Amino acid sequence: MTVANHQLIIVGGGPAGLTAGIYAARAMLDVVLLEKGAAGGQVMNTDWVDNYPGFPEGISGFDLAEKFTAQAQRFNLATKLCEVASMDLSGPIKKIVLADGETLTSLAVILTPGARPNELNIPGEKELKGKGVSYCATCDAPFYRGMEIAVAGGGNTAIQEAIHLTKFASKVSVIHRRDELRATKIIQEKAFANDKIEFVWNSIVTEVLGDKEVEGVRLKDTKTGAETTLALQGLFVLIGIRPNNEMLPLDQLDNDNGFIKTDKKMRTSQPGIMAAGDICSKEVRQIVNAAGEGAVACLAAEEYLGSLK
Amino acid sequence: MTVANHQLIIVGGGPAGLTAGIYAARAMLDVVLLEKGAAGGQVMNTDWVDNYPGFPEGISGFDLAEKFTAQAQRFNLATKLCEVASMDLSGPIKKIVLADGETLTSLAVILTPGARPNELNIPGEKELKGKGVSYCATCDAPFYRGMEIAVAGGGNTAIQEAIHLTKFASKVSVIHRRDELRATKIIQEKAFANDKIEFVWNSIVTEVLGDKEVEGVRLKDTKTGAETTLALQGLFVLIGIRPNNEMLPLDQLDNDNGFIKTDKKMRTSQPGIMAAGDICSKEVRQIVNAAGEGAVACLAAEEYLGSLK
Repeated sequence: MTVANHQLIIVGGGPAGLTAGIYAARAMLDVVLLEKGAAGGQVMNTDWVDNYPGFPEGISGFDLAEKFTAQAQRFNLATKLCEVASMDLSGPIKKIVLADGETLTSLAVILTPGARPNELNIPGEKELKGKGVSYCATCDAPFYRGMEIAVAGGGNTAIQEAIHLTKFASKVSVIHRRDELRATKIIQEKAFANDKIEFVWNSIVTEVLGDKEVEGVRLKDTKTGAETTLALQGLFVLIGIRPNNEMLPLDQLDNDNGFIKTDKKMRTSQPGIMAAGDICSKEVRQIVNAAGEGAVACLAAEEYLGSLK
Repeated sequence: MTVANHQLIIVGGGPAGLTAGIYAARAMLDVVLLEKGAAGGQVMNTDWVDNYPGFPEGISGFDLAEKFTAQAQRFNLATKLCEVASMDLSGPIKKIVLADGETLTSLAVILTPGARPNELNIPGEKELKGKGVSYCATCDAPFYRGMEIAVAGGGNTAIQEAIHLTKFASKVSVIHRRDELRATKIIQEKAFANDKIEFVWNSIVTEVLGDKEVEGVRLKDTKTGAETTLALQGLFVLIGIRPNNEMLPLDQLDNDNGFIKTDKKMRTSQPGIMAAGDICSKEVRQIVNAAGEGAVACLAAEEYLGSLK
């Protein structure tokens, strides 16, 4: 007989992990959720969530995270504040080694460590996040109605979102470090044909300007080195996203550039290991589908646990 | 150039359809949602929703449906009360024919018509529906406080709900046509350990007895053919679910016993046609994953619309 500390360990306390936790605790599984900071994930730092269904007027990210957490607590979800150092997910007993040296074991694991947007890492960016600096056009576009804004980036997402942003903003400057886009031709052509979009070629943003809100950006010409400023009210930084996978044994999990591959039941390539939320290899990264995946992952975990012995 | 009434039509106003609608309307798509009754889908008839993340104390199904609807209305989602008679989803212009003869056209369609519970189709069942015959333990369990009731079925839902019902009923007989359950082990073990639950193996319900209210059921032994009656005050029929696909052109859509097959982006086999929620071929049918799928389907629709011309 296999002996483990828990039936299920959930790694990460964002919307996917907390939803998996709500389902698992309510199903009376022996489960613990590991979280290194405050539960809630990226949502905690999201100023306003407009499109999570159930809140007609929207809700602050902080409040929404708190509601998820309170709901998990109502079902007595055990939560452990800790940092995960490494894992061995092969074999029937899954081992999770914490930074302090403790090892936790379980029969099943749901991986929900999330992801984070790439940042420009320039002065003013962190300070004005949520105050004009955004990393998600689907989330925040409607907040910029009638305003002049910019997009930093030149890939498919950046250009698609620039086009989307023109439905709201009066002008969208696309700031790109090269003199041509990486985006596919059809998307480029639509962007070039859109008279609200202006391209600022061979340029990088070196500083976000503004006191309490974004008022402009400082630009540097990558060829001449000349500096200019551009007055605007919003900057969308759309230069990719990277997975929070530092603690994951990627050699044990099929993945796509570090994002974990799953089937529709959120099962990874490793038996007993599910993944949900932004860590997954996918295109849509919204709170509501992270939560939905968390529920599906929990039911897959229950099914896996039910198949043991 | 293609001419259609709308960019997008959403068929069905449950959690999946309303979430797709929230996303589509917020993204300023030219979209209309078709709904034949009150928006909200099955949720409307659900007494208490305990596990939709964001409501720590739970919320009534009616209130949750109203919140989804209000949120869609805030983004000015156009909604049309109508019954869909048939569809032609092949070709670039999608045609939706209404029961009154009107034809609507669009470039993309999201199918969210939902599903409904299977019935036993035995004498007395329809007559006593709502008078002791129920298809939703979550909705009706509190009406059976202190009563003796039965559950027909042996799957996960049936056994989970049987356990739930013991919180109210004095005794729950689980009537199952075989001598073992299909439900997962952990759920079975809980049911076997629950002394309010009694199993009636190898039996089917052949008639619901009672004049104005359920007074009992007639049972037939599937092995011996022997008939018995069981006195009780409530019968929960929990024997699966079937898709609301009467208006769908199943010859144009890959499907699994009438449930629509999708990829992870919720795209069906037909270009420009997405599906989300209970109509999909899948195992987990919860509000939160229906909603998550609605969001993903909307973004797939946007991507499809962006690829046109």
